Amino acid sequence: MSAHFLALDWGTTNLRAWIATADGTPLVRRDFALGVSGLAPGEAARRFATEVRPALQAEQLPAVLCGMIGSTLGWTAVPYADCPATFGELQRSLFAVDDGVWIVPGLRTERADGSGPDVMRGEETQLFGWAMSDPARQRGEYLLCHPGTHAKWARLIDNRIDGFVTAMTGELFAILRQHSALRVTDAVENETAFDQGLEAAGDGGALASRLFTARSRVVGGSMTSAWAESYLSGLLIGAEVAATPALLGIDVPGPVAIIGEPALCQRYARAMAHRGIEAHVHDGETAVLAGLAALYRGTLA
Amino acid sequence: MSAHFLALDWGTTNLRAWIATADGTPLVRRDFALGVSGLAPGEAARRFATEVRPALQAEQLPAVLCGMIGSTLGWTAVPYADCPATFGELQRSLFAVDDGVWIVPGLRTERADGSGPDVMRGEETQLFGWAMSDPARQRGEYLLCHPGTHAKWARLIDNRIDGFVTAMTGELFAILRQHSALRVTDAVENETAFDQGLEAAGDGGALASRLFTARSRVVGGSMTSAWAESYLSGLLIGAEVAATPALLGIDVPGPVAIIGEPALCQRYARAMAHRGIEAHVHDGETAVLAGLAALYRGTLA
Repeated sequence: MSAHFLALDWGTTNLRAWIATADGTPLVRRDFALGVSGLAPGEAARRFATEVRPALQAEQLPAVLCGMIGSTLGWTAVPYADCPATFGELQRSLFAVDDGVWIVPGLRTERADGSGPDVMRGEETQLFGWAMSDPARQRGEYLLCHPGTHAKWARLIDNRIDGFVTAMTGELFAILRQHSALRVTDAVENETAFDQGLEAAGDGGALASRLFTARSRVVGGSMTSAWAESYLSGLLIGAEVAATPALLGIDVPGPVAIIGEPALCQRYARAMAHRGIEAHVHDGETAVLAGLAALYRGTLA
Repeated sequence: MSAHFLALDWGTTNLRAWIATADGTPLVRRDFALGVSGLAPGEAARRFATEVRPALQAEQLPAVLCGMIGSTLGWTAVPYADCPATFGELQRSLFAVDDGVWIVPGLRTERADGSGPDVMRGEETQLFGWAMSDPARQRGEYLLCHPGTHAKWARLIDNRIDGFVTAMTGELFAILRQHSALRVTDAVENETAFDQGLEAAGDGGALASRLFTARSRVVGGSMTSAWAESYLSGLLIGAEVAATPALLGIDVPGPVAIIGEPALCQRYARAMAHRGIEAHVHDGETAVLAGLAALYRGTLA
């Protein structure tokens, strides 16, 4: 039992670690270029012990880890917890990989529209962390949005994640701008172009057709190629905001809580405002630390 | 004036050439690894003269070229013809780059749903070639579908292309299977998986969310990774078939004519059958030669 603990957000491309107090106050923070995608099979435990702990002078602290470190590519494959899942159930599903070292399970759900299962690993800690940061959020219904490579939209009711759905928006943006005919070499960020993309997203349908306008507007002479990337970003985020909440089978319940990297969250807030949806932005790093601390406190009980 | 001519379908990745009679009967056919994307600036004319003509022993024949050879990356940037465009207008817009050497212009349209301009280069020759192959097709209204990297859906009325819309389905499939989290290493073609993808496409909306099921079904345990690629193909083609015709602002007028590479066309026909849409498949190579020949005959008039 310890007043301090090691909090790790160990994702595909990066590892972010803190020494924090049990109430979630960060004392030390350090990033490591140890993303799960770069780990050799079976070496996660060793690199945690020989690199992460010594670098933080935290050889003895208990540790709570979330993210893709709980996947087949990470330390070990931690079984998903099934939705609906309360914070208490997530707590009870912590997976011990060593004395005082726990991995947070990801969540699995069946999509409300019948299109199959959906999964997350890491975002659950941010979403519950957001809720655990304020007792008022542990009652009532909320729509949470976590932008990113694989954006997540989740329905939170009385501190229980009832269901969620993923949109591959961030990954589509990355591969389209790098590998497709939409690639341009002179991109500059432009808010007007982003807004034109939001407008072109329409109801979010026919995406494969709408995407092509990021090229046809350029070769057709109605947009400079420098704007194509911001336009593409607006189009993809606009289509997600227009079409994804309906897959949860709910109306939007009050302001949406957007949780994640602040600059990206602001783009989502702008897309929601464009559609008349009220939203508030919350920092994802604060949320993940709050979630890891709440889970750590549970291990002390 | 010649009874024979040189017909060239000169695209981004490949050049297909025929010596053909003026009525479109092929006498000699040859492919060249001379795609426009591999040409150095300004060298198209020289390589045509020093490689293509000699290889076909066709130094003196008149030639009609279609495809990306008419773009800024090709021989020269040939201005688009604007829709609505009749075959006669395409004919009159042939762009002479040398004595007896013509490039077919691409087409430009304003999308019926207001989402901006759209463009094609090369497909117009196949679409009109299909119509010119049978006098009956030169009257009445048809919905034409040309699958490919950038699939085209066009409305043909009385041998006039009124409008069209592009869907980046082929390119999305290529970059998702190569560069995204949907990539698998053990893919096998499977018709059941393709059909499950068609079903998962729903109404074609929320594509960025539906795509993720190609991964979540695998990690969630309800699909083998070997099926993921066929499922993805069904999902993308199904979403295109469900959502794209509506962008043309029309109901589907009778059987759809699918024109292109036969195996890919069959996948589209299956997707249409799944939605109760009647369709007939037509070989794209036959169509492009018919189109080039019809355009060549026009130069003799």
